[in-house]
Amino acid sequence: MSVSVVIVSDPGEESRAVDRGTTGLDLFGDDTSVVAMRVNGTTVDLATELADGDRVEPVLATSGEGLAIIRHSAAHVTAQALQELFPQARLGIGPPITDGFYYDFKTDPLGPEDLKAIEKRMQAIIKQRQRFVRRVVTEEQALAEEADEPFKLELIADKGRPGADDGSRVEVGGAELTVYDNVRRDGTVAWKDLCRGPHVPNTGYLKAVALTRTSAAYWRGDQSRDTLQRVYGTAWASREDLKAHQERLAEAARRDHRTLGAELDLFSFPEEIGPGLVLFHPRGGILRHEIESYVIDRHLEAGFDIVHTPEISKGGLFRTSGHLPYYADTMFPPMAVDEGHDADGALTRAGQEYYLKAMNCPMHNLIFRSRGRSYRELPLRLFEMGHDYRYEKSGVVHGLTRMRGFTQDDSHTYCTPEQAGREITDQIAFFLSILEAFGLDDFHLELSTRDEEGPRKDKFIGSDEDWADATRTLERACRATGLQLVPDPGGAAFYGPKVSVQVRDAIGRTWQMSTIQYDFNQPERFGLEYTAPDGSHRRPVMIHSAKLGSVERFIGVLTEHYAGAFPAWLSPVQVVGIPVAGEFNDYLAGVAARLRARGVRVEIDDSDDRMQKKIRNATRQKAPFMLIAGQTDRAAGAVSFRFRDGSQFNGVPVDEAVERIVSHIASRANEDPTAAEQAGTGE
Amino acid sequence: MSVSVVIVSDPGEESRAVDRGTTGLDLFGDDTSVVAMRVNGTTVDLATELADGDRVEPVLATSGEGLAIIRHSAAHVTAQALQELFPQARLGIGPPITDGFYYDFKTDPLGPEDLKAIEKRMQAIIKQRQRFVRRVVTEEQALAEEADEPFKLELIADKGRPGADDGSRVEVGGAELTVYDNVRRDGTVAWKDLCRGPHVPNTGYLKAVALTRTSAAYWRGDQSRDTLQRVYGTAWASREDLKAHQERLAEAARRDHRTLGAELDLFSFPEEIGPGLVLFHPRGGILRHEIESYVIDRHLEAGFDIVHTPEISKGGLFRTSGHLPYYADTMFPPMAVDEGHDADGALTRAGQEYYLKAMNCPMHNLIFRSRGRSYRELPLRLFEMGHDYRYEKSGVVHGLTRMRGFTQDDSHTYCTPEQAGREITDQIAFFLSILEAFGLDDFHLELSTRDEEGPRKDKFIGSDEDWADATRTLERACRATGLQLVPDPGGAAFYGPKVSVQVRDAIGRTWQMSTIQYDFNQPERFGLEYTAPDGSHRRPVMIHSAKLGSVERFIGVLTEHYAGAFPAWLSPVQVVGIPVAGEFNDYLAGVAARLRARGVRVEIDDSDDRMQKKIRNATRQKAPFMLIAGQTDRAAGAVSFRFRDGSQFNGVPVDEAVERIVSHIASRANEDPTAAEQAGTGE
Repeated sequence: MSVSVVIVSDPGEESRAVDRGTTGLDLFGDDTSVVAMRVNGTTVDLATELADGDRVEPVLATSGEGLAIIRHSAAHVTAQALQELFPQARLGIGPPITDGFYYDFKTDPLGPEDLKAIEKRMQAIIKQRQRFVRRVVTEEQALAEEADEPFKLELIADKGRPGADDGSRVEVGGAELTVYDNVRRDGTVAWKDLCRGPHVPNTGYLKAVALTRTSAAYWRGDQSRDTLQRVYGTAWASREDLKAHQERLAEAARRDHRTLGAELDLFSFPEEIGPGLVLFHPRGGILRHEIESYVIDRHLEAGFDIVHTPEISKGGLFRTSGHLPYYADTMFPPMAVDEGHDADGALTRAGQEYYLKAMNCPMHNLIFRSRGRSYRELPLRLFEMGHDYRYEKSGVVHGLTRMRGFTQDDSHTYCTPEQAGREITDQIAFFLSILEAFGLDDFHLELSTRDEEGPRKDKFIGSDEDWADATRTLERACRATGLQLVPDPGGAAFYGPKVSVQVRDAIGRTWQMSTIQYDFNQPERFGLEYTAPDGSHRRPVMIHSAKLGSVERFIGVLTEHYAGAFPAWLSPVQVVGIPVAGEFNDYLAGVAARLRARGVRVEIDDSDDRMQKKIRNATRQKAPFMLIAGQTDRAAGAVSFRFRDGSQFNGVPVDEAVERIVSHIASRANEDPTAAEQAGTGE
Repeated sequence: MSVSVVIVSDPGEESRAVDRGTTGLDLFGDDTSVVAMRVNGTTVDLATELADGDRVEPVLATSGEGLAIIRHSAAHVTAQALQELFPQARLGIGPPITDGFYYDFKTDPLGPEDLKAIEKRMQAIIKQRQRFVRRVVTEEQALAEEADEPFKLELIADKGRPGADDGSRVEVGGAELTVYDNVRRDGTVAWKDLCRGPHVPNTGYLKAVALTRTSAAYWRGDQSRDTLQRVYGTAWASREDLKAHQERLAEAARRDHRTLGAELDLFSFPEEIGPGLVLFHPRGGILRHEIESYVIDRHLEAGFDIVHTPEISKGGLFRTSGHLPYYADTMFPPMAVDEGHDADGALTRAGQEYYLKAMNCPMHNLIFRSRGRSYRELPLRLFEMGHDYRYEKSGVVHGLTRMRGFTQDDSHTYCTPEQAGREITDQIAFFLSILEAFGLDDFHLELSTRDEEGPRKDKFIGSDEDWADATRTLERACRATGLQLVPDPGGAAFYGPKVSVQVRDAIGRTWQMSTIQYDFNQPERFGLEYTAPDGSHRRPVMIHSAKLGSVERFIGVLTEHYAGAFPAWLSPVQVVGIPVAGEFNDYLAGVAARLRARGVRVEIDDSDDRMQKKIRNATRQKAPFMLIAGQTDRAAGAVSFRFRDGSQFNGVPVDEAVERIVSHIASRANEDPTAAEQAGTGE
């Protein structure tokens, strides 16, 4: 007997009559680039039998879903290998994650040698091409089979309950309980795990697996529960993909702003201060100052008004804005100030709770409201380099890119609803031009809207009509840029929709930078008003916007984008003077003095090192200009340039050298100076 | 019988034989400019009998001590008048304070009419020249006499205990209890008060007394005790002195930066944020930005390195620095952060207490310590516009001059002890030149040292030798300036001695601005080290210095110094364009665009107001340049200048007008532009 199935693939659909009992393996089994199949929209093992009328779609190893299945199967093999080596180890959970997977075990801490041994054992299992065989069990059977695995017993008991709040994947639940057996060619069961699946057909599909590291983790993320050992790994569709991933990691590691920040003495994150808080050292401090000054000047030129507000406020302000309670879990806890009495014993207020601000808008609203406003003043653009604090969990803070304390180049425009479209269009152009000024020019836009339905819809405040209007206004402004626009449903702030600029860096990673948000809520909550030409009192709308996003994060991204070799105008040290020998120190000191008088940041390496060592040091410090001087140079009143690319440009008269450097810096060029460029543009 | 006394007065000493029983009144009683006398160093009533060998010195009404006695006596008369009018009122305490006195009463709240009635009654009492008569009483007598005065009974019971912690003067105590009777000419007692004295001989000595205001106050400053009514007054040696004081107050009120801040829309202190915290509005924001930018640039030119540190840290850092516990009561209370676990359930730290920083030095120390340091790097000068928070009682915060949140232009120099003297000398010159750049040029220095003995000596940490060395170094640097140097024993920070610059403003008031402190403690506590030329590890010293002091306070002082009419380079609005009629709006808008392109802050008053009204408005806003344009100006391609002093300078071609304005601003002149000045320097 035959049944009819429809096979859906890239070129199109194909109806095919197949024998009853046919499985995906029969259809795709000779091609390990297919790891599972979607049958009528549900992803299942290839070993699943097909029924009449099924629509079957192969899941490719290289697809997102295919990679997750490979990684999940690799997690099983990791657990199998580990339990074969350490039979006392007890199993936690083992989900796929971005670029890899992990598996948690109750066992002794594992060292690098253990990881190697596990990896070796995994390769042996993979070589054996053990089949992943799915088996439905009753709860009773499951409890009996997993009697030695206390954590699995807990998961079985939890069947039907939703997954833990901490985001860990609880792998049982749904309609039925299933166990996957790893079956040898001789039919014996090598290992098994309680698991929802699906999996690759056999371990031979795991062509590119590597373990990467271990860490400690609480069972179900709960500090009061057992401490487990987490083994992390990565898995890909092919050896080539794995290698490319490892190379990306190596390149990213080479550019890691935390490493470069230490090597270039830009900043540090001392344990004494706390996670997510940074100290900018002199070299990072001047970089930051250059960036902030440039961005402030651009704002002033563009008609923004600079304001300044404190880092703390009484809690009532944030209740007025709605940040409390909507935002409470991302704010630092309050400081309880008991005001008591003053020195004379005069009457004072009762105690108060003060909060660190997580955003600047409530304070800008107070400035708007500090006196009557006329339509003549609109759009009114209040701008601040605001120091904000958000309580990120210490496990998710990451260098400068995810912090607890950061600086927003934050503006709030108050305008009429009619002015909003124009203002948003102008501001998008404004922040793209700022990003371009720093050498970032590969972007697309993302439009974050509210959840239109579902349980999270209540998180968003305001009427359907207001949301629709605001979203339309933003979308129109985005379309006008001609840039690619990606929708992000559910990603809006609670008070209104948002556009963000996603920037690709030099190695192809995407970062969210500038954002602009349309807010019809806070003007209402703060009772903001302006007097219209007809004397009536009207409510303005409010446009939140940050251009760099966070100054710190921007510095982190810029550091990685340039791999620490910043454009000359931003370089902490712009010129390193290298005397060929100590006798030329004074000569170069004279040149340095002239450069300093023109505002150039110069250092002279007057150490006892030899010239080649000095060049290596300056190269490591990524200075855009080295000025070398010896006998010939001094005799000619000249210096020799050396650039980051190793090119040189010798015998440049000092006057000309100073002008070349000053003019390159003043141009804010983001390209490196080189001998070729200097020869081309010199005279 | 006669006794011999020595009378000490300004020209010298004089021995005199006087009759036994002679009092100060006999010696000085015909001269109301002497209000009391010091006998062998103790100040007593003039009615006190002199003994053989006494050294007697008159206390002048105009001296600090004389004024305090006058004010204390005036407080008695206030209480007497009030009890005569409101017999149910019960007495608290009534001490002299700066420029006046107060007296606290348990009574119904008092209105302005009540104050007038009390003042009138006081004048009647003063006219009667009632004598202040001192009488020693036993505790038993005192308790009987004050039976109706519950607060006095409490003070009697407390006799011998030290005064309350809140700084209120408890007026009993010492060896004996005394009562002062106010005695009429007929010998009857008009009123009496338990009091230590001394007092003026009679109420006729109170020639210039005025009540000023009332407020509520807790008995002994304790919120849980009775609420009293406090009556404030002022008293002086003469009507002329009182009038001068009232004129000073009026002038200070006219210049009050809080009033000007609102009138000129510079800043505000909204209740919603909390006391001691300020919002800088656009006009105050640009003023602040100009000041900060100038001061940062000066630091960079002078070889300081700019750094940046967060507003919060874990508490341990401030324990290392010694600020906790030494400084705990002036810091905001901690935020209790319970770190919990991260999203993956990975292990994290236990809970922590985070504090707002009250100073930047501990964080700068971490930057110094972030890597090895060589003697070649010293002096290393770390500089920051640090946002600090100190928990001032809400009753003592005052506008911008005493805040809870403020910005220090704070630097820490790390250097060898040998370099310290030179560094301090240079920095004193540096900060005087910064103050001068803002038009403040009338200063003296104050040298704050530790208490050399007494109970407070323990507050200061470090060896006697270190204190002596540091004090010597500072004193030498001060002497080198040639400025007046005033000692301030006991005024040092806990970690080392301090020099501060005291600046006289335009109306003669003195403000503490720049400070420089020598610190040998924190380098020890943080284990700071550098490698000396011989390879040994040595400890640097640390020099704290702030040039403006607090940016906010500096802005407050500058606002009062200039009465809001800031120099052009600092003015929020530098030019107001005033079209004679609406038809000239476009012409002036063209001029404004040219000025804006040169970085000048211009506003055009294109309202419907008439020209004279526009001039009045611009004058009230204290713009340094008004540009007026009508028919003649437009026809000639010119504009007319009007200056703050009302002078005008007509028909200036636009090109020339732009250059005049740009060059005046670029010069950072602190003098107002005027027609005369412009005519003199124009061509």
